[in-house]
Amino acid sequence: MKFQVLSKDPGCSARTGRIETARGWVDTPVFMPVGTTASVKSISPDELESLGARIILGNTYHLSLRPGDERIARLGGLHKFMGWRGPILTDSGGFQVFSLARINKIEEEGVLFQSHIDGSRHLITPESAVGIQKNLGADIMMCFDECTPYPVSYEYASESVMRTVRWAARSKDAAAGCGQALFGIVQGSVFDELRDLCLEKLASIGFDGYAIGSLSVGESKEQMLEVMNRLAPRLPDSAPRYVMGVGAPEDLVEGVRSGVDMFDCVMPTRNARNGTLFTSRGPLHIKNTACAEDPDPVDPDCSCYTCRRFSRAYLRHLYICRELLSYRLNTIHNLHYYLGLMAQMRAAITNGGFEQWRKYFYARLRSNQ
Amino acid sequence: MKFQVLSKDPGCSARTGRIETARGWVDTPVFMPVGTTASVKSISPDELESLGARIILGNTYHLSLRPGDERIARLGGLHKFMGWRGPILTDSGGFQVFSLARINKIEEEGVLFQSHIDGSRHLITPESAVGIQKNLGADIMMCFDECTPYPVSYEYASESVMRTVRWAARSKDAAAGCGQALFGIVQGSVFDELRDLCLEKLASIGFDGYAIGSLSVGESKEQMLEVMNRLAPRLPDSAPRYVMGVGAPEDLVEGVRSGVDMFDCVMPTRNARNGTLFTSRGPLHIKNTACAEDPDPVDPDCSCYTCRRFSRAYLRHLYICRELLSYRLNTIHNLHYYLGLMAQMRAAITNGGFEQWRKYFYARLRSNQ
Repeated sequence: MKFQVLSKDPGCSARTGRIETARGWVDTPVFMPVGTTASVKSISPDELESLGARIILGNTYHLSLRPGDERIARLGGLHKFMGWRGPILTDSGGFQVFSLARINKIEEEGVLFQSHIDGSRHLITPESAVGIQKNLGADIMMCFDECTPYPVSYEYASESVMRTVRWAARSKDAAAGCGQALFGIVQGSVFDELRDLCLEKLASIGFDGYAIGSLSVGESKEQMLEVMNRLAPRLPDSAPRYVMGVGAPEDLVEGVRSGVDMFDCVMPTRNARNGTLFTSRGPLHIKNTACAEDPDPVDPDCSCYTCRRFSRAYLRHLYICRELLSYRLNTIHNLHYYLGLMAQMRAAITNGGFEQWRKYFYARLRSNQ
Repeated sequence: MKFQVLSKDPGCSARTGRIETARGWVDTPVFMPVGTTASVKSISPDELESLGARIILGNTYHLSLRPGDERIARLGGLHKFMGWRGPILTDSGGFQVFSLARINKIEEEGVLFQSHIDGSRHLITPESAVGIQKNLGADIMMCFDECTPYPVSYEYASESVMRTVRWAARSKDAAAGCGQALFGIVQGSVFDELRDLCLEKLASIGFDGYAIGSLSVGESKEQMLEVMNRLAPRLPDSAPRYVMGVGAPEDLVEGVRSGVDMFDCVMPTRNARNGTLFTSRGPLHIKNTACAEDPDPVDPDCSCYTCRRFSRAYLRHLYICRELLSYRLNTIHNLHYYLGLMAQMRAAITNGGFEQWRKYFYARLRSNQ
């Protein structure tokens, strides 16, 4: 994997860049749709491609439990298994172990947990997390880390940061020579000095990219933005900067402004399934009675398949009837919105006018409220 | 609507024909995918078109309750509402009233029932059933009929047939001059003389097409085939013959052999969602452990999107994880199978070799058993 910064905005930390992988290049800033169990929910790989997705995320935790990473390896790897030709980033399983599974024990070796599917017991270590990601054949792997909840004491966060750093060093050793990129994850909750310490230690180990972890885990939006905006510009300039699990459209805008290159979040796909559609004028709740006989598209300015072909009235009907097509049409629209938003931001940075574009974005977003 | 018989097989009653509607022609024998609530479940109108579907079915009962036929009329009709450009046939609501709703009273005027959705009370009459179908803008409408259960006494079936005939005459009056085609439905359960009587009465009223109703309602497969095979060739030669709600692939083959032109059934779409995939060598249950690491497509002879792009192993994984994409990929395959089967039969009839093709079909179907 190679990364190159292509342009920097004169007014803020925003930048464009290009990640080159064996499976093609990815222009940054980029949003990565989440394909938890080898499927971006309701969407086919061809639709993802048409929507302009260039890289997607797969979840190590889910895939290792079902269908199993060794099975996927025997079937030729995750790309072949799910029919996705572009690059894939896999997380380390850390976030899911701490949010979905029942934790039995955190020790130096790794984490003992019980599967959320069948209660079976597993030990995940930095080495096994990398091993799973090797089996999946990810283009970009993540170090196994401890994802602390919010709130957490300074003492525990400090202990946890040091463990995450030791696990990162072990992850790097485990990944040595495999040809797959490996990113480190900066932890430290809302404590600036712990975040800085973690970053310093990780940078001295040296990774292909750096991520900010444990955001959107219960802290306030202000705290999240504070951590992201302060920390992002401090991540090494020459490597991709990735904020994990964030976020709402305005969070992406703020992240890009602070110099973040990569994002992933379930928000566009999950909200789609819950009937919330993103538009340039703010979210639309498709189940609203106001949509019942509305012949207009979700967003008259949107060129996605859903908006070109279907009315709000029809989408509301599908949603209320729980028709399978509802989830898909909504997902197409929301991913189109997210991926289009990133493209707009890349263009604004390239043209040196990110701050002006940002003002326009907010003015429009609030025009409906 | 116009109908023309184009060729007849020399060895049996099978025939090809063409239905012409304002929204395009339909080659027969044809299978109509079922789009109950203005959506063929999990599939977009564009996919339906790519699969070769030419005409689809909408359910009067469901659509009148949700979102309401008057609402659909205000939104420009069912075609525009759901984005389907080809012809649509709507059933009369009879079958659903008798199978889904709670019947309060059957009287000469019509049927009093309670909605299966919210228990609300409704009266459906021949006139209101036609009125709903006019609002929907169906290219082909069906007469409101009483769909008797199986078993039913001769006495009740006889009474019911005469009511269905009177309702058919009222349906025809209600449809007069609207420019939408109207089909009569032959009832009479498994009683030959009642079926013949009903047919005679309907033919003397005169309809654009004739359907056989109340099949696949609990009678044995043998009884179903007996009624269909005896009755189909007696339906007027010059009008489309339609067997409602039938059936399995072999039922379609037998129906075509007896001279049936039109079919609809939820089997390909419902079975897809339950993980049963049709193949030329018989059904495949995708959840079978044997599929877990099988890199082959569902049917190596199939050219559908699902078979071109995905392995049995991946489809099994999606099915087990209840991923939304599972329902869709399975549905694409099953509809491709059904629509392809009809195309094969049309070609065999045109070439005068239906009986030979039929032997080949069964030999292949049983090669896997």
